[in-house]
Amino acid sequence: MPYYIGDVIKDQTRLIARTPEKFREGGIDVRTRTRVSGIDMARGVVELQENQNIPYDFLVMATGASAFVPDMPGLDLPDVFALRNLEDAILIKTRLKEKNAKHVVIIGGGFIGLEMCEALHAAGIAATIIHKDGLPANRWDAALSAVMLEELLAHGVEFVANATAQSIETGKDAPLRVKTDRGDYEGDLVMLAIGVRPDSQLAKAAGLKIGASGAVAVNFAQQTSIENIYAVGDCCESFHKVSRRWVNLPLGDIANKQGRVAGRNIGGRPLTFDGMVGAQSFRLFNLECAACGLSEKEAVAAGFSPASNITWGSAMAPSMGIKKIGLKLTADSSSGGLLGAQAVGVSGAVDRINTLSVALAAGMNLDQIGWLDLAYAPPFGPAWDIIHNAAQALGRTL
Amino acid sequence: MPYYIGDVIKDQTRLIARTPEKFREGGIDVRTRTRVSGIDMARGVVELQENQNIPYDFLVMATGASAFVPDMPGLDLPDVFALRNLEDAILIKTRLKEKNAKHVVIIGGGFIGLEMCEALHAAGIAATIIHKDGLPANRWDAALSAVMLEELLAHGVEFVANATAQSIETGKDAPLRVKTDRGDYEGDLVMLAIGVRPDSQLAKAAGLKIGASGAVAVNFAQQTSIENIYAVGDCCESFHKVSRRWVNLPLGDIANKQGRVAGRNIGGRPLTFDGMVGAQSFRLFNLECAACGLSEKEAVAAGFSPASNITWGSAMAPSMGIKKIGLKLTADSSSGGLLGAQAVGVSGAVDRINTLSVALAAGMNLDQIGWLDLAYAPPFGPAWDIIHNAAQALGRTL
Repeated sequence: MPYYIGDVIKDQTRLIARTPEKFREGGIDVRTRTRVSGIDMARGVVELQENQNIPYDFLVMATGASAFVPDMPGLDLPDVFALRNLEDAILIKTRLKEKNAKHVVIIGGGFIGLEMCEALHAAGIAATIIHKDGLPANRWDAALSAVMLEELLAHGVEFVANATAQSIETGKDAPLRVKTDRGDYEGDLVMLAIGVRPDSQLAKAAGLKIGASGAVAVNFAQQTSIENIYAVGDCCESFHKVSRRWVNLPLGDIANKQGRVAGRNIGGRPLTFDGMVGAQSFRLFNLECAACGLSEKEAVAAGFSPASNITWGSAMAPSMGIKKIGLKLTADSSSGGLLGAQAVGVSGAVDRINTLSVALAAGMNLDQIGWLDLAYAPPFGPAWDIIHNAAQALGRTL
Repeated sequence: MPYYIGDVIKDQTRLIARTPEKFREGGIDVRTRTRVSGIDMARGVVELQENQNIPYDFLVMATGASAFVPDMPGLDLPDVFALRNLEDAILIKTRLKEKNAKHVVIIGGGFIGLEMCEALHAAGIAATIIHKDGLPANRWDAALSAVMLEELLAHGVEFVANATAQSIETGKDAPLRVKTDRGDYEGDLVMLAIGVRPDSQLAKAAGLKIGASGAVAVNFAQQTSIENIYAVGDCCESFHKVSRRWVNLPLGDIANKQGRVAGRNIGGRPLTFDGMVGAQSFRLFNLECAACGLSEKEAVAAGFSPASNITWGSAMAPSMGIKKIGLKLTADSSSGGLLGAQAVGVSGAVDRINTLSVALAAGMNLDQIGWLDLAYAPPFGPAWDIIHNAAQALGRTL
């Protein structure tokens, strides 16, 4: 996502909204609320809808991603929102206040939906999540997602599992009602957080190469198939160092890196973005949830023979009290090379995933990871960290 | 240290003290309070002081390290303690209770002395630290140690800088008085935490090779210069992957790894411990303090041309509030290879050092580290982590 929607709900709007203004102060021509209808590469101009053209030497596509919105009656009702851009966020926040909202129905239990719950909870607003599967955050293993579900329930979030939203209509006890195949749920607002799709239509229409992921294809310099057109952020692909495939992973830190690389190349100081390992995280109330690398499914698709285990441990030495943490490792059963990791815990989960992200980038195997030198002290972990235990245990099964 | 002395003060004695008993239940002949006077390698026996011999097929030296005790009058006074073993810890705890101690004088402001302060503070006992230098924890850069000093003072610890203890005598207002070249300091107990030395005398007397560090020399299998004698823990050396030298680094996690490797080799299932990168950490009240790799001094000694910078950042995205963290990076100015890192902060310092420890183990350079894929989410850090900013900034200066 190009910004963190939770920030807006948590009253950080002002900072973000000032960005265009600040750019203008710097002499940069920023045009908000301006729609581009096409790109004429032969003439080197961007065509605006009002038949105005802007000429370019270099063009950067940074069109982002759009919220996926399923076909469903009632999407046009007031106070039904998809989570797309800053305007949505400001409007959502305004409406929550105006309506003195008490309850929001969120369709989608992926990590964006979960983050929304947390932001709403912080604002004193209850949430119901309607999710297609039995557990939230499907990217994570069921055993880890079950911990997330516990955390949701402990904070009063209603989680409707294995349910498909069928329509949205006017409610009886609250302004809106979401009808699902598992009952009806009412709230003051409805938010759709089902996933995002790269906004690559403009690029495609202009004739730029689109990758297998549906996002704009780029090289390591962030150049598209046309020499003077670059693409960065959620609309384009990035190289996954573990699968060694070009994929679309719409995450803010990747977008930042790509933006810097494109700028350097356009400015004549070459630089490449050599890819990522899929590191990601989110906070869910008191839980840290993080992952890197490939899921088992992705590993199979990339041609590996994945083997996995889940280890439960403590983020502190037993003598210092217990802070439960669950760590899933996935490795290639032929080489023992690490393919991915997932962690959930009250503390220490992001730390473990960052550590393992570097191990992934370095192409380490379980034997190496099982004996990594980490900064041991009892308040932060046991002498044999959960990373060591997990890697050694998985290594023994290969 | 073979155990965490703070644990004992914090009432974890029972768990640790049960260890010999548990081993005996497992049919293992554990002899506590038994002194070994020598090793007769020709006969394959360990000689006890009472002229009793214990034969061995394999012998493991795990004699640990001893607290360094300076030559000073008054060391034999009651309630003057060095921090060496479990008996010391239990005795210290007993005496703190018996005397209803209110104030302890600690000689030495290294990380063991600092950990003691914290343990005493948790038990409601005030501390004065007498330290030879201007700032605590000399391994860390002065700018980072200054943050530690602030934390000590904020918790009511008295820090006497640039002072040398000259003698200990009976006090006036409290039972003991430490006389220094910067005044006299009184307390109920006095603790010496000046550093440790490997206990390698027995090994040396037996004719085992001693390394340049003064600790027992071993190979990657933890074998000493004699085939059927192994050494593990604080008494022996380990291979530092950054300096590529054998050094003595008395840390609990290293000891654990060496113990497991020696056991595997003696048991006939070969395994090597291929070394460490000097990762270490301690908690100081609300601060995480961590380091890995080489200090600048060590880097020069190893033949590198180190360049360093210190970056101040936040362990969270600015929109989520500020949790200040300081990160020092040291790299080789010719290759750009990372040589070491130090971090201090309310949170996130251990995370960053663990991440950089893996980068050190993988031999990464600043260009690689500046673009590492880390698990970004605003509650845990900004999109450009302090690691990225620090590595890129240092890289630009080389």
